[in-house]
Amino acid sequence: MKLNVGLVGCGRLGRVYARDLSSRIPETRLAGVIDPDHDAAARAADEFGSRVFVSAADMLADSSIDAVVIVSPTHTHRELVLQAAAAGKPAFCEKPLALSLDDSRDMQAAVERAGAFFQMGFMRRFDPGYVSAKRQIERGTIGRPVVFKSTSRDPFPPKLEYVNPASSGGLLVDMGIHDFDLARWFMGDVASVTAAGGVLAFPEFASVGDIDNAVATLTFVDGRLGVVDLSRNGVYGYDISTELLGTEGTLRIGYLRETPVLTMTKNNVAHDTVPYFMERFERAYTAQLQDFASNVIGGKKPAVTIEDGVEALRVALAATEAQRTGQRVEVRRG
Amino acid sequence: MKLNVGLVGCGRLGRVYARDLSSRIPETRLAGVIDPDHDAAARAADEFGSRVFVSAADMLADSSIDAVVIVSPTHTHRELVLQAAAAGKPAFCEKPLALSLDDSRDMQAAVERAGAFFQMGFMRRFDPGYVSAKRQIERGTIGRPVVFKSTSRDPFPPKLEYVNPASSGGLLVDMGIHDFDLARWFMGDVASVTAAGGVLAFPEFASVGDIDNAVATLTFVDGRLGVVDLSRNGVYGYDISTELLGTEGTLRIGYLRETPVLTMTKNNVAHDTVPYFMERFERAYTAQLQDFASNVIGGKKPAVTIEDGVEALRVALAATEAQRTGQRVEVRRG
Amino acid sequence: MKLNVGLVGCGRLGRVYARDLSSRIPETRLAGVIDPDHDAAARAADEFGSRVFVSAADMLADSSIDAVVIVSPTHTHRELVLQAAAAGKPAFCEKPLALSLDDSRDMQAAVERAGAFFQMGFMRRFDPGYVSAKRQIERGTIGRPVVFKSTSRDPFPPKLEYVNPASSGGLLVDMGIHDFDLARWFMGDVASVTAAGGVLAFPEFASVGDIDNAVATLTFVDGRLGVVDLSRNGVYGYDISTELLGTEGTLRIGYLRETPVLTMTKNNVAHDTVPYFMERFERAYTAQLQDFASNVIGGKKPAVTIEDGVEALRVALAATEAQRTGQRVEVRRG
Amino acid sequence: MKLNVGLVGCGRLGRVYARDLSSRIPETRLAGVIDPDHDAAARAADEFGSRVFVSAADMLADSSIDAVVIVSPTHTHRELVLQAAAAGKPAFCEKPLALSLDDSRDMQAAVERAGAFFQMGFMRRFDPGYVSAKRQIERGTIGRPVVFKSTSRDPFPPKLEYVNPASSGGLLVDMGIHDFDLARWFMGDVASVTAAGGVLAFPEFASVGDIDNAVATLTFVDGRLGVVDLSRNGVYGYDISTELLGTEGTLRIGYLRETPVLTMTKNNVAHDTVPYFMERFERAYTAQLQDFASNVIGGKKPAVTIEDGVEALRVALAATEAQRTGQRVEVRRG
Repeated sequence: MKLNVGLVGCGRLGRVYARDLSSRIPETRLAGVIDPDHDAAARAADEFGSRVFVSAADMLADSSIDAVVIVSPTHTHRELVLQAAAAGKPAFCEKPLALSLDDSRDMQAAVERAGAFFQMGFMRRFDPGYVSAKRQIERGTIGRPVVFKSTSRDPFPPKLEYVNPASSGGLLVDMGIHDFDLARWFMGDVASVTAAGGVLAFPEFASVGDIDNAVATLTFVDGRLGVVDLSRNGVYGYDISTELLGTEGTLRIGYLRETPVLTMTKNNVAHDTVPYFMERFERAYTAQLQDFASNVIGGKKPAVTIEDGVEALRVALAATEAQRTGQRVEVRRG
Repeated sequence: MKLNVGLVGCGRLGRVYARDLSSRIPETRLAGVIDPDHDAAARAADEFGSRVFVSAADMLADSSIDAVVIVSPTHTHRELVLQAAAAGKPAFCEKPLALSLDDSRDMQAAVERAGAFFQMGFMRRFDPGYVSAKRQIERGTIGRPVVFKSTSRDPFPPKLEYVNPASSGGLLVDMGIHDFDLARWFMGDVASVTAAGGVLAFPEFASVGDIDNAVATLTFVDGRLGVVDLSRNGVYGYDISTELLGTEGTLRIGYLRETPVLTMTKNNVAHDTVPYFMERFERAYTAQLQDFASNVIGGKKPAVTIEDGVEALRVALAATEAQRTGQRVEVRRG
Repeated sequence: MKLNVGLVGCGRLGRVYARDLSSRIPETRLAGVIDPDHDAAARAADEFGSRVFVSAADMLADSSIDAVVIVSPTHTHRELVLQAAAAGKPAFCEKPLALSLDDSRDMQAAVERAGAFFQMGFMRRFDPGYVSAKRQIERGTIGRPVVFKSTSRDPFPPKLEYVNPASSGGLLVDMGIHDFDLARWFMGDVASVTAAGGVLAFPEFASVGDIDNAVATLTFVDGRLGVVDLSRNGVYGYDISTELLGTEGTLRIGYLRETPVLTMTKNNVAHDTVPYFMERFERAYTAQLQDFASNVIGGKKPAVTIEDGVEALRVALAATEAQRTGQRVEVRRG
Repeated sequence: MKLNVGLVGCGRLGRVYARDLSSRIPETRLAGVIDPDHDAAARAADEFGSRVFVSAADMLADSSIDAVVIVSPTHTHRELVLQAAAAGKPAFCEKPLALSLDDSRDMQAAVERAGAFFQMGFMRRFDPGYVSAKRQIERGTIGRPVVFKSTSRDPFPPKLEYVNPASSGGLLVDMGIHDFDLARWFMGDVASVTAAGGVLAFPEFASVGDIDNAVATLTFVDGRLGVVDLSRNGVYGYDISTELLGTEGTLRIGYLRETPVLTMTKNNVAHDTVPYFMERFERAYTAQLQDFASNVIGGKKPAVTIEDGVEALRVALAATEAQRTGQRVEVRRG
């Protein structure tokens, strides 16, 4: 039995999901797509063998749709999750859950009230490197982890309209939410955060009110430490790396070479780097949706919950405020 | 329009091809499978959504089959390629082409007579590392390549019945043929070869008449040099690496870490290695069949020809004789 | 003409300096040693061919002594530097300059008043990696550096009596001062600092009032960013690494393998790590003293000034206060 | 008590030895130097604090000289070793021992007859990487080593007069002798060798009768395998690397980065390489002479014997003949 999935959003990442749902994941079928850009929806339907719905409401009302995958812009998540919950259809939602805690709590309440299945999209939790690190920590390889360090860098700045904090949430939400989710996954809840940041590489970011570099320091509720640094000017390549320093060792997750070839010329050894997130996390994206499908089919719990979405957002918003005010911000008492 | 492919052979690699043809390659459909083990054929048909044919003859006679992919044991290749050529059906054949030059020349003659499309399977030519190296050499990055070095090592020995040179061709054919094909692809024809080898790690290999380690030195027709070393005891992991030393630099292809995580404990930094060929060449296998399909559909020439299959075999057999006799063996005059 | 150097302090690092001054640095002779532990002084004098003085005063008064190298405990630096300045003898002083800003300013005033030659010991500035990074930044290789990141980790905790902040200054002074000096060297003056830290690995540190892990975030006077993380539990090896992220690239300084051998066994690739600071910075220590000697002999300016010592201490003390109070601390206005 | 060493030869490597004997090795004093280039001798004597002798005979006759270190051109080794043996003075001799087996056997006979102390110079045996590999093999880390692989590459070709086989012995002697010595050190005696080579990068080598690239395959007396490849066009950097493949793992010795800094710019990660042998083996050279001195002083046996010098030469000459004739050459029966 295959899960018939309706896909909401046919942009760049939406098309990756369309391909995975239609071909790479044996448990799923791509049963429908929607996108406000009708051409984009038609192209995806044509290329990946699906049909186009005219609205989310139609899609959710259609009995041929078993579940929905939401990859539309963040500001649309709230309404879509509420509709899916009301329709009793299992939903998968791409990060971030929302741009405000209020919205995210409405969504959480709706999901819980409806008893609906909801899985949050944080694909790094499905990357073989992060999965291996989690397992090694559980096995005690590095003793007790005491410092969490994570770096996210884009190889080039996104378009200015994307950067706008009104739609993206700003650097610490849009980009940092992955690192803050990892922080919680590996270390538990965050007590307080400080942050510093600025427009250091792309002056035009100032015009929309965002920053291009930031450093956030986390204190977890049990006193352990975390530090996250983010940058839009990782011009050498897409660089996602995390370290867990423990009492008996350390784990470093991430890599920087895409093509398995070294070029050695006059006094120089060189290799390429990772182009962008679709190359770095190709397998993780597929594994994430496959996990969603098999959880729904098997009646299992979501691997990543809506609470995880709310809590990562809480840290990201606190970091944003800390960066803005220069003051330490309490997230949650221990 | 999709190419309807019949798959001959549902073993370990056959199943990889079944998955790729049925889902990962947009240009193909898995239209039929055969295997002397009927259960294996039925399982593959069921899992990847295809039908079972009772014989290659039936499959080739069926008008719903546009082309065949041959992944059956080497000794069956000759008959299958002859039948496909006679039926005028495009064929893809896994390496090695055959175990004897006579067989391989019969196959080449049949393909040429029939004017049939035939593509030889040497998946390393589709690996991003080897592809990048080829391009860099064409661009002149390392000047003129003068020494070719290639290493192939299995992480554990195959079963003894597989090792038997009567069916595998022996270490220098079964394993070395990939390296000899790369040698030709990067450097051109081989003039002569010397080789040394022995049973050094697995004494049981002697009972079937094969060796488990070998070193072969190649002299190309223009005097340039090559060296290939092969081992069944790469117990640390599957290790395929090639170097092209040029007058202006060198290129090194290959990698040894599978999971992007480093584990650092008391005085030690460690990482895992590549499990086996399906992990190392997963993308190359898919790209190879996709290339076959698009060549057939587009009426293009094969990327790897039957002559490439014959010539790589010629070098492998010469190396085998050189290892047996201890003498230099002429392959082809410059 | 050789510089006759008197060495003050014959402990672990003192003996390294004794060896360098007596043999590895062509420009110097080890002309005298002192240490409150008379046996230690006698052993060093015997092993490295020098004579023992009974006090710093005697040594500074002796006409056979051209200059002094101070490697004694930090609390003795003030008095020694004042005496050397009064005696008009060139002095080299190991980091940190002092434990309080008051002391350090007294020393600066004395040196300036006397017009004496004084060179501050920050050996990382003489490490080939840091030197190369500095040069590459000057050449513009990475554009404008915008984020400074630095990590220092000891492979095992020092003795508790050494850790005691009363004598060591605490983690952020004792260990962090190197990173704060690098921050200034690469990026300029620091405007403000926040810090978090705790006793996370060695509970006994609490008994002397020090912490074993810390993260400090720096904002430079021009708004650029820095982050320093320090740990006493780098149990895998001595790990000193620094990154300079620029608008056109990034530089990473440091290494983690000491012996040039890789050991690859069942599914595992491993290498050793750097034992401790004497291995990591062996060449830097020698180069630093050689630079001191050739500056004195050649009448050149010191490569690292007493002001560098004062300012690095200022940042380290601000970070210590920030960690204690949880508040951002102003260092200096832009 | 220090060993008073007379140094024969003040060329490039001679000056390294002069520095080590005069300052870095506590057990020695540089008591005299000679060189047919009197200016070179005078400069070395002046710089490293020694006196100039007019001839080896004078030096060996002088009672202030305890031992000699021979770093003069290879063709002078025979006479010098004979003289030292006759004078009863311990001698250290740089590789290769001689250019012919006849000469080397005369030397061996003279040393044995005189009962003189003689230590052969193969500095790689003192490199921390090779030392660690030896120890790990003795400990059984990789089981039984079955394949020896070694690569030596110069970053640029030597001067043509140096290359001339009449004085250098040719590529397989001059450069390969280090790898052949390692082969014997790790694996034991060699039974036979094949080799291929040519002038592939520097056409001018043909004018003096040498080649610039070669591959030699070794069969050890117990049937194990070895392969050595040599090149004068390692233009990317000085590259010395060796692998020992065993039944339970593999060891890889060597490194390619000199300065601990990575430079990451647009889509590229790069580092420098090792400039040349003096950087790569700086410590090994010092450790080698220190070992010589402490063996002489302590009345111990030489770490590397004259027989090691003879046998490495025997393999190198056999490889040279194998390359010239294209035939397998017997070295020694098992």
